[in-house]
Amino acid sequence: MHGYVDNKADLTKRLRRAEGQVRGIQRMVDDDVYCIDILTQVSAVTKALETVALQLLDDHLNHCVAEATREGGPVADEKLREASAAIARLVRS
Amino acid sequence: MHGYVDNKADLTKRLRRAEGQVRGIQRMVDDDVYCIDILTQVSAVTKALETVALQLLDDHLNHCVAEATREGGPVADEKLREASAAIARLVRS
Amino acid sequence: MHGYVDNKADLTKRLRRAEGQVRGIQRMVDDDVYCIDILTQVSAVTKALETVALQLLDDHLNHCVAEATREGGPVADEKLREASAAIARLVRS
Amino acid sequence: MHGYVDNKADLTKRLRRAEGQVRGIQRMVDDDVYCIDILTQVSAVTKALETVALQLLDDHLNHCVAEATREGGPVADEKLREASAAIARLVRS
Repeated sequence: MHGYVDNKADLTKRLRRAEGQVRGIQRMVDDDVYCIDILTQVSAVTKALETVALQLLDDHLNHCVAEATREGGPVADEKLREASAAIARLVRS
Repeated sequence: MHGYVDNKADLTKRLRRAEGQVRGIQRMVDDDVYCIDILTQVSAVTKALETVALQLLDDHLNHCVAEATREGGPVADEKLREASAAIARLVRS
Repeated sequence: MHGYVDNKADLTKRLRRAEGQVRGIQRMVDDDVYCIDILTQVSAVTKALETVALQLLDDHLNHCVAEATREGGPVADEKLREASAAIARLVRS
Repeated sequence: MHGYVDNKADLTKRLRRAEGQVRGIQRMVDDDVYCIDILTQVSAVTKALETVALQLLDDHLNHCVAEATREGGPVADEKLREASAAIARLVRS
């Protein structure tokens, strides 16, 4: 089981809302809504997805990485390497 | 008509793909997929949405803002102010 | 003369402060200050530089791009293309 | 001693270069250089500072957080909480 298991309901709710927001943006484009109003929605859903990512990362550090670190050895090194790479992708996206 | 009218098909295609990606991330959470793999997908869909936003902004500058600027006056000032505010939201999101 | 000429004093002040912050971060590293405190300062100076960039971009849109747009033709197209590329670099950095 | 002690020379070199870049941007503003060229430099120094931050964070996770996690208890929880908050600031800046 992974770190986010306790937050599954919250993550699923946030992701469903984000999915609905993206569908809503499609309708705005379809209905020729003003560009700036669409851009505002795109920024909102990007922020919502960042919140999901930060929650996942927090859970991952607190469970998967923490557990592996307690055991030590190459598994721990790999978990820490993976976490840093995921953080870099988030910061650069 | 707004600046993005010529790119509607491309924008809609990108948004549909992003919607599918978000739905896919829900399934990953549901299926207890490893945190890092989910994070990789969240970074990918955030980047895809940024591309949509940059396309919308480019169209907006080239059409709505350019037209208003040619006419000049308070409408032009407002369009430029709006564009700068949208850019700031994008940079900060 | 470029768009930011009226904001030169403010831009210079912000850039000097950012320079001082970066020098301050060097001292923190030198003095073995705790990582998290250094990271807080790096986020602060990154945000300060984003504010400088957004100010420059706003001035550029309101002056250089607006002027070129009024004249129209290939110069205007190039200015708009350049502005969009600069915005994309900012959003992706 | 903190996690970044082994990378001090590299961090200091990067920070000095960033300081020089910020000073260079001041000169560009002073010399009325074209806005887009200044914006390119601001994006470059922002990216350089992000690299410093990601290096610091990687060191912090691999040393300070890993050590605390092996010991466990409230110190470990606080280190993990701090790390997540620093990551969030980085992602949002």
